[in-house]
Amino acid sequence: MQNEVSTKQGEERFQVRRLEISDKSKGFIELLQQLSICDSVSDEEFRARFQELKSHGDDHVICVIEDEQSGKIIATGSVFVEKKFLRNCGKVGHIEDVVVDSSARGLKLGQKIVSSLTDHARSVGCYKVILDCSIENKGFYEKCGFQHKSIQMARYFD
Amino acid sequence: MQNEVSTKQGEERFQVRRLEISDKSKGFIELLQQLSICDSVSDEEFRARFQELKSHGDDHVICVIEDEQSGKIIATGSVFVEKKFLRNCGKVGHIEDVVVDSSARGLKLGQKIVSSLTDHARSVGCYKVILDCSIENKGFYEKCGFQHKSIQMARYFD
Repeated sequence: MQNEVSTKQGEERFQVRRLEISDKSKGFIELLQQLSICDSVSDEEFRARFQELKSHGDDHVICVIEDEQSGKIIATGSVFVEKKFLRNCGKVGHIEDVVVDSSARGLKLGQKIVSSLTDHARSVGCYKVILDCSIENKGFYEKCGFQHKSIQMARYFD
Repeated sequence: MQNEVSTKQGEERFQVRRLEISDKSKGFIELLQQLSICDSVSDEEFRARFQELKSHGDDHVICVIEDEQSGKIIATGSVFVEKKFLRNCGKVGHIEDVVVDSSARGLKLGQKIVSSLTDHARSVGCYKVILDCSIENKGFYEKCGFQHKSIQMARYFD
């Protein structure tokens, strides 16, 4: 019984929703900084990028989880839809930039985000969804229903 | 001397250019079929997807090499630009669907395509360009200036 109540509270407290422009003041950029390099972004830059991404509609979606108690964004991830000629003009979902706040690990918020992004890719007609991750995160993504497929190569510009 | 002439002829014969709508009748879909599943695409479907991708301008580019002698498309690859908040609202180029016709291997057309896609990503301000490939193609992409970075995970939908 106690568990049921906790789960319900957790479900209400940790809802996945789309990024909103006001999330910048709720720690969204600071959360991304836990994943990779991200200097401070001005309100103007944030607004411009937000509108640009929003103009893609369902083809580029950023999800977040806001902790209703603290008002902070504690998890995020994005998916964008690539349109191909291959697979009979098929579509592929690319998941990027999944991160959970270091203080909120163990609550399965990462799975919740990935599940939401995967569901979105499926709902818009993608035949698959893919992502790149470190070998350390392979187990996590296997739990999310993914399989190791190939390797990622990168070339950085100066 | 002979080599110089051959190289020059090769350079003229194998130019990288953007996909054109007329490339469907030059074997573009058949070339993609050498890479992955791609049933026949109707002219209408092709036109619709072509226009859709073209509307993204420099954010989604498909390159091809047409053999000027045979009038066939013998190599292709694409790159699309993902816009992020990370890396100070940075951009990442994603290379996809690189394939060279089986009859045209050994002419370094793959390198030519990848180089062109990479140059494009750099020119539009990407901080890196990435791609997924089989472990067998790692050496090829290393020759193109890429480094093995992480792993790719995939989830297919029924």
